[in-house]
Amino acid sequence: MAERPTIEFWYEFASSYSWLSVMRIEALAAGAGVEVAWRPFLLGPVFLALGWNDSPFNIYPPKGRYMWRDLARLAQKYGLPFRMPGRFPRSGVLAARVALLGVEEGWVAPFSRAVLNANFAEDREIGEAVVIGEILSTLGLPAEDLLARAVTPENKLALRAQTERAAELGLFGAPSFRVGDELFWGNDRLEDALEWARRSPAG
Amino acid sequence: MAERPTIEFWYEFASSYSWLSVMRIEALAAGAGVEVAWRPFLLGPVFLALGWNDSPFNIYPPKGRYMWRDLARLAQKYGLPFRMPGRFPRSGVLAARVALLGVEEGWVAPFSRAVLNANFAEDREIGEAVVIGEILSTLGLPAEDLLARAVTPENKLALRAQTERAAELGLFGAPSFRVGDELFWGNDRLEDALEWARRSPAG
Repeated sequence: MAERPTIEFWYEFASSYSWLSVMRIEALAAGAGVEVAWRPFLLGPVFLALGWNDSPFNIYPPKGRYMWRDLARLAQKYGLPFRMPGRFPRSGVLAARVALLGVEEGWVAPFSRAVLNANFAEDREIGEAVVIGEILSTLGLPAEDLLARAVTPENKLALRAQTERAAELGLFGAPSFRVGDELFWGNDRLEDALEWARRSPAG
Repeated sequence: MAERPTIEFWYEFASSYSWLSVMRIEALAAGAGVEVAWRPFLLGPVFLALGWNDSPFNIYPPKGRYMWRDLARLAQKYGLPFRMPGRFPRSGVLAARVALLGVEEGWVAPFSRAVLNANFAEDREIGEAVVIGEILSTLGLPAEDLLARAVTPENKLALRAQTERAAELGLFGAPSFRVGDELFWGNDRLEDALEWARRSPAG
């Protein structure tokens, strides 16, 4: 039996454009017959390696001003309710640690949508454990247990390894998509990446 | 009589993604019933104001490696013949000065396509007057006269003013598109910008 083609989806909970792709990828991938491999990671160490100690949208104000307007327009185009976050970027570390557990257990997609909506549609402090706990509970998941497992040394190390892998793969921003050895960067490349996967030999 | 909606098209002859938009914009704009106002400018001063003394694709190697692969893929998608330039970026100053004359006289579109093809499809030194002269001659234009008029103090000042205007408008990269007060950045926003223009009240 032929395997379905797969797209690796690299995203960060602090990232505004990751929000757009997290909200869109499942339906688009299903339509293209492509499996999604969710790869939460941290942009912070990747940016530090490029010499940025903050989001480039904060370091370069014209880029930042443009990004927020672009994001609002795209959210409207996609029918997503955008609300300007009171803080940017928010730490995605805890959310990413929890998301790794969700990858193992099969609930990473709804969890990721809920966290990114909390950040960019609800202006909630996703860096705080109480917010992540509420999100888990709303999804019917055992919040206390998962928050404890998220911060075990083993799970922390797993996220660090995933982030190091991102840098090794040449990633420099989020969202990014990989199909085989092909790298696609940006929410605006999601459709191209899925088309690449659809045309690739399966398996 | 209602005026047709207009898109301002800000581009730079050194810019790889400007190549893609210069090659695509006329047909897409015609299909959308939108006029194109060609705005050649220089990215160098804009980048300097952001703290970059070179193309960010050179300053940040992972971004640069990605850009060339992305460009090759997009060129294939659009049916454009890409050839990796032996030098990047090449100076677009002379080409932009000549292009300003082309805006006045109505030949800016074919001139811009020819120069950007020379840079990204033919690996020619578009910073050199002999190359720009050959391009003008091939288009049936008076090369010697235009090259002389390109470097008059008045025309140099006009390009400087246009570049300062770009910075005032919040531009930070090329290609960029403006529809009324709305700014769109990147070849991947060309279709969105045209759609915005199409839906805008004319005039």
